[in-house]
Amino acid sequence: MNDHPSSGPVTPDSRALGGVIPPLCTPLTEDRELDVGSLERLCGFLLDAGVDGLFVNGSTGELAYHTDALRLAALRVVRRVAGGSVPVLAGAVDMTTNRVIAQARAARDAGADAVVATVPFYSPTHPGEMADHFRAVRDAVELPLWAYDIPGNVQRKLPAQVAAGLAGDGVLAGLKDSSGDLDELRTLLELTEANGARAAGFAVLTGSETMADTGLALGADGIVPGLGNVDPHGYVALHWAARRGDVKEAVAEQARLRRLFALTRVGDPARIGTYSAAIGAFKEALCRRGVIATATTPLPMRPLSDQERTEVGRHLTEAGLGPV
Amino acid sequence: MNDHPSSGPVTPDSRALGGVIPPLCTPLTEDRELDVGSLERLCGFLLDAGVDGLFVNGSTGELAYHTDALRLAALRVVRRVAGGSVPVLAGAVDMTTNRVIAQARAARDAGADAVVATVPFYSPTHPGEMADHFRAVRDAVELPLWAYDIPGNVQRKLPAQVAAGLAGDGVLAGLKDSSGDLDELRTLLELTEANGARAAGFAVLTGSETMADTGLALGADGIVPGLGNVDPHGYVALHWAARRGDVKEAVAEQARLRRLFALTRVGDPARIGTYSAAIGAFKEALCRRGVIATATTPLPMRPLSDQERTEVGRHLTEAGLGPV
Amino acid sequence: MNDHPSSGPVTPDSRALGGVIPPLCTPLTEDRELDVGSLERLCGFLLDAGVDGLFVNGSTGELAYHTDALRLAALRVVRRVAGGSVPVLAGAVDMTTNRVIAQARAARDAGADAVVATVPFYSPTHPGEMADHFRAVRDAVELPLWAYDIPGNVQRKLPAQVAAGLAGDGVLAGLKDSSGDLDELRTLLELTEANGARAAGFAVLTGSETMADTGLALGADGIVPGLGNVDPHGYVALHWAARRGDVKEAVAEQARLRRLFALTRVGDPARIGTYSAAIGAFKEALCRRGVIATATTPLPMRPLSDQERTEVGRHLTEAGLGPV
Amino acid sequence: MNDHPSSGPVTPDSRALGGVIPPLCTPLTEDRELDVGSLERLCGFLLDAGVDGLFVNGSTGELAYHTDALRLAALRVVRRVAGGSVPVLAGAVDMTTNRVIAQARAARDAGADAVVATVPFYSPTHPGEMADHFRAVRDAVELPLWAYDIPGNVQRKLPAQVAAGLAGDGVLAGLKDSSGDLDELRTLLELTEANGARAAGFAVLTGSETMADTGLALGADGIVPGLGNVDPHGYVALHWAARRGDVKEAVAEQARLRRLFALTRVGDPARIGTYSAAIGAFKEALCRRGVIATATTPLPMRPLSDQERTEVGRHLTEAGLGPV
Repeated sequence: MNDHPSSGPVTPDSRALGGVIPPLCTPLTEDRELDVGSLERLCGFLLDAGVDGLFVNGSTGELAYHTDALRLAALRVVRRVAGGSVPVLAGAVDMTTNRVIAQARAARDAGADAVVATVPFYSPTHPGEMADHFRAVRDAVELPLWAYDIPGNVQRKLPAQVAAGLAGDGVLAGLKDSSGDLDELRTLLELTEANGARAAGFAVLTGSETMADTGLALGADGIVPGLGNVDPHGYVALHWAARRGDVKEAVAEQARLRRLFALTRVGDPARIGTYSAAIGAFKEALCRRGVIATATTPLPMRPLSDQERTEVGRHLTEAGLGPV
Repeated sequence: MNDHPSSGPVTPDSRALGGVIPPLCTPLTEDRELDVGSLERLCGFLLDAGVDGLFVNGSTGELAYHTDALRLAALRVVRRVAGGSVPVLAGAVDMTTNRVIAQARAARDAGADAVVATVPFYSPTHPGEMADHFRAVRDAVELPLWAYDIPGNVQRKLPAQVAAGLAGDGVLAGLKDSSGDLDELRTLLELTEANGARAAGFAVLTGSETMADTGLALGADGIVPGLGNVDPHGYVALHWAARRGDVKEAVAEQARLRRLFALTRVGDPARIGTYSAAIGAFKEALCRRGVIATATTPLPMRPLSDQERTEVGRHLTEAGLGPV
Repeated sequence: MNDHPSSGPVTPDSRALGGVIPPLCTPLTEDRELDVGSLERLCGFLLDAGVDGLFVNGSTGELAYHTDALRLAALRVVRRVAGGSVPVLAGAVDMTTNRVIAQARAARDAGADAVVATVPFYSPTHPGEMADHFRAVRDAVELPLWAYDIPGNVQRKLPAQVAAGLAGDGVLAGLKDSSGDLDELRTLLELTEANGARAAGFAVLTGSETMADTGLALGADGIVPGLGNVDPHGYVALHWAARRGDVKEAVAEQARLRRLFALTRVGDPARIGTYSAAIGAFKEALCRRGVIATATTPLPMRPLSDQERTEVGRHLTEAGLGPV
Repeated sequence: MNDHPSSGPVTPDSRALGGVIPPLCTPLTEDRELDVGSLERLCGFLLDAGVDGLFVNGSTGELAYHTDALRLAALRVVRRVAGGSVPVLAGAVDMTTNRVIAQARAARDAGADAVVATVPFYSPTHPGEMADHFRAVRDAVELPLWAYDIPGNVQRKLPAQVAAGLAGDGVLAGLKDSSGDLDELRTLLELTEANGARAAGFAVLTGSETMADTGLALGADGIVPGLGNVDPHGYVALHWAARRGDVKEAVAEQARLRRLFALTRVGDPARIGTYSAAIGAFKEALCRRGVIATATTPLPMRPLSDQERTEVGRHLTEAGLGPV
C-alpha cells in the first residue's frame, strides 16, 4: 500500500497537514453553555493519543447549532490548549460567500491556522459560482483555505474537476471529503497529481469513520473521523499501520472501529442518521470514558434515552474502551 | 370561490396578516453595499401598489448572501419607510435553534413585526425535533413567529401535521408555503380549521408566483410572490379578484403573470433554477422599470449576460410593464 | 370556475375522452389467480355509478406485479363487460420502446381502445430520447397513445414542453398526470391550448384522488382516481359538480373524499406510501362493500393486519359507504 | 492485500463463481435485430482473454431495451459459445415477483447457469417485501439466484442486512453490487462472513469499472465491468494482480482503465450518465477493435455523433487498444 503510485514515499511530516485530525465534539454544561474544562480535557486526551491536528467547529462540533460567540469561544480554548503543537483548523461554515468571509475572519482573529468552508448552500447555485465562492473567500482572508465537501448536509457536491482547478491555482490548501464517494476522491487525487497541486502541498483528508483505511490506501493524506473523539488511539494506530504499509494491521483496526461505530445506530430506527443520534452517542461515550462531564447536546437535539445510553456503554465495552 | 368552505366569509382586514406581501429584493450599489435609496423607492413602489405587508430578508431578499449587518440595515430601512402602515415580516433564517434565536432577537430590535424561520437545516434532524425548534424560538422571542416551509432550500418539509400542532398551540402565527405542494397546503388548512387555529388567527400564505390564484382558491390568506417586486399591481389585482370571487379575472391575471415569470428562465439552460438567474432577472426588471439603480447581485452570483438582460426587457414589454 | 378560459363550455361528450375513468383494481382469488367474477362485478359497479371510461392495467391495477397473461386476461374481461359502452384504456407499461410496443400490440389485440405508456425507465435516458420513444410506439401501434406521467414510479418527469410537442404533432392523444405537479399540469394545458392540440382533441386527465377538483378547475378533462374503485359515485358527483360550475359542491365532495383517502394510511407508519398499503386498503374496502370476493394482493405485497383492516372499515363507515 | 482478513487464502477456483465476469454487450444489426455473428465473436474475444464467466442480459446488455424474444436469443447464443467452459449468468430483470419468475424460468430453459434479479421496482415496496420477493423467486426456479443491487436504476438499495439474511438462509447464491457504495459492500462481506454464508459459498461481485481493485481489496470475489467488453485483458490482468497480492500492479492497471473509462463521457455534457452515451461508446469501441460489426443501439437511444465516435477512438489509442 506504501507503493501506491499517487501517494509516493510519504513520511509523516512531509505534508503541511495530514494524519489524524479529529473533528472535535463541543462539550456543553447542563445549561448548554460551553464546558471549558471538558473541552480542555478532550483536547488533552486527543493530543496525548498522538493526533496530528484538531478541527474545531466541524459538523461533529455541532457548528449548525451554536452561536458565533460559542463557536469562537470553543476555538479559543482549542487554540490555547494546542499551543502550536499541532495545527488547528476551524470551520467557517455559513450559507454563502459574505457570511463565510465573516466567519473566516473571526476564526482567523481567534487563532485558527486554517479555515474550512463548504460550497454555498440554502440557495441553488450555478456550478461555476462554486469556484467563484472559494476564490472570493481566499482573497478576503489571509489563511489557508480548505474545502469541506459534505453534500449530504449542503445538497451539492463540489465536483472533483472544480476542486482540482482551485487546488492547481493555489486557492485551496486542502479538501476534507465527507461525501462518501471514494471514486470521486480518487479522481481528485489523480487530477491534483496531474496538475502539480499535490506536489505543491495540496492535501486531501477523508471524513469517513468506516472507510478510513481505504481512503488512505487510495492516497489520502489523513483522516477526520468523528469517532476519533471517542477512540483516538484506534485511529492513530490505523493511520500508522497504513503509513508503514501494514495493510493487515490497518484493516484489522478498521474492522474493530467499524464495529464500534455501531454506537451511532442504537435505539429508535427513525432516529438513525440524525445528528442527535450520532453526536449524542459520541458525547455519551466521552462521558463514560471520563473525558467530558455531561452528554448535553444543544437545542433542538433530543437526548438519548436511558436504554440508548446503555447500548452505547455496551459498544464501548465490546471495543475494550474504559475510563481514561 | 368566496363560498370555499375552509375560508369562510373573509374580508380584507379580518386577519392579522394576509393579502399580498412581497418578499423584497435587496438592492445593492455597484460596490455591493446596501443601496438605501433604491430600497426606499422599492418600498414606496410596493406600498403605492397596495400591498398588505412587506417581507424583508426572505430568500428572494438574498438572505443567504448577506451579512447580519446588511440584513439588519435593510430591515431598518423597510421598517422606516413602512412606518407602521403595513406589517413588516423579517426572515430569521439560520441553521438551527440558537442561531435562529440570535437572528430573531436582532430582527425584533430592528423593528420587525414578526419573524419567519425555517426548520433546522445543514444537520439531519429528527422530525420530532422540528417542533421543539419552533417552540424554543417562540419561547425566546416575544414576536409572532411564522414558519417558512421551503424544502427545496432546506432539504426537509415541515409536515402539515407538525405545523398544525404548533398552530393549535399558538406557537406559530402563520406559515409561508414555498414547497409547491398544494395538497399538503390544503391538508394544513383542513387541520388548522379543525383544531381551531384558523379561527384564532393562524394565517397561511403561499409563496408561489405561478399558482397564487389556486392557493387563494384553496383558502390561503395571501401570497408572497418574488415576482411581486416587479409587478405588484398585477398581484394586488389578482388577490382582489380572488377575494371578491371573480375567478375569471383572477385566472386571467394569473395567466398574464405566468407568462411574465418566464423572465426567470432566460438564457443558459444550465442556469435555470439558480438564484442568480431568478434574482438577477427581478433586479434587471426593477432597473428597467426605474425602481432601483443597479441590478447588482451579491457574490458569488454571476450577473446576467447582455443577451439575457435583453430577454428580460422583452418579457417586460410583452407584459405591458414600462418605467414607473 | 366554469368560466375557466382553458376549459371552455365543455359538455360531457365533446371530447374523445374525459370525465371519471377509474384505474381498475385487479381482483385476485385466494390462489392469486385473476378473479373473473369479482372483476366483472367491479366493472359493473363502476359503470352503474356512471363512469366515463375504464383504465385497466394501471399502477393501481398492479401492472408491475402481474404476468403478461394475467394483464391480458384482465383486459379481456373489462373489454367484454364494457361492451363498447365506454372506452377502455389499457396500460402498456414496460421499461423501454420495444417492450412497450410488444405490450401495446398485445393490448390492441385484446381489445383496448387506447394504450397508456410511461417514459423509459430502469436505464437513464436522454431527455430527447423520451420524445423518440413515444414516436416509435405510436408508429408501431395503430391505437391512440396516452402518456402516463408518473415520475414517482419511473424516476423521470415527462416535461410539459416535450409532451406538448408530441401532442401538437398528433403523437399523443392524451396524458394522465400522476406527478402531483399542478403547476406543470397548467403549463401543459397552456402549451397545448397555444399549439392547437387541445382544439384537436388532446385530453388531459389528473390521477390525483385528493386534488381532483383543483385539476378540473385548472382545465383538466377528467380524473383517474384509484380511490374511485371504492367510491365511484363520489367522484362522478365531484366531476359533474365541477363541470356545471358548482365549485362549492365540488369542493365539499372533494373534502369528503380527502377524508376517505386516509384509508390508505392506516397502520404501520413505515408502510405508508407503499403500494401494499394503498392497494391493500382499496381491495379491503371493495370486499367490505361486497364488490369483490377477497382482498388478496399479489406477491410480494404483505396483506393488511387485522387492525389495519378494521381501520379501513372505520373510514368507510365515516364516509357513509356500506355494502352495495 | 492477500492478507485481507475477510477474503482469506483464496485460490482462483475455490469459489463457485468469481473472477472477471463481463456483462456482455448485445450486438445488433443495422436493422436492430440480434447480430448473432458479432455476439459469437464477442464471446470468443472474452473467453480468449480469460474471463471466468459471462453475464448476459445485464444492464450493459440493454436488458431494458429488448423484447423477451431477443433476450432469450442472446442467451442461447452465449450458452452455445460458452459450451460449459465458464458459467453463464442471465439477467431475469423485471418489475416484480411474478414477472421475474417468468423471466427466470425462460432463462433456465434457455440454458442459464444462474439468474440475476433486482429488488422490485416501479411500485414503491415495503422493505420487508424485498426479502419475500427473493424468497419467492428462489422457490419458483431451480437455479442459483443472484441479487443485482443497482439502486440508480431501480430507486431502492437492497440493504446489506437484508441481503446477508437471504445469503445466510441459502436463498441467494451471490450478489452483484452496482450501488457504488463500498461501505455497504464491506458491511455485506462482514455480515456474511459472520453468519457463515461466505464459508458456504456466497459470492460478492462488484460492478464498478473504476474501483474494481478496491472492491477486490475489500474482499469481493470478482468484478463485472461493462468496460470489460472493450478491454477484457485489462480486467483479467487487474484481477490476477489483486489475487496474487500485487497491489502496485493492480492499482496501475486500474489507473489505466480509469483513463479509458472516459470514453463513456465524450461529447454533449447533457448526455453524460445516460445509457446511450455509455453503451454507445462500448459498442463503438468494439467496432473499432473489430469484434462486432456495427455500433447500432436499440430504440430510443440516439447514436453517437461523428465527433463523439472520433473521441472514443482517441481514448482507445491512448489506452493502446487496437484491432484484434
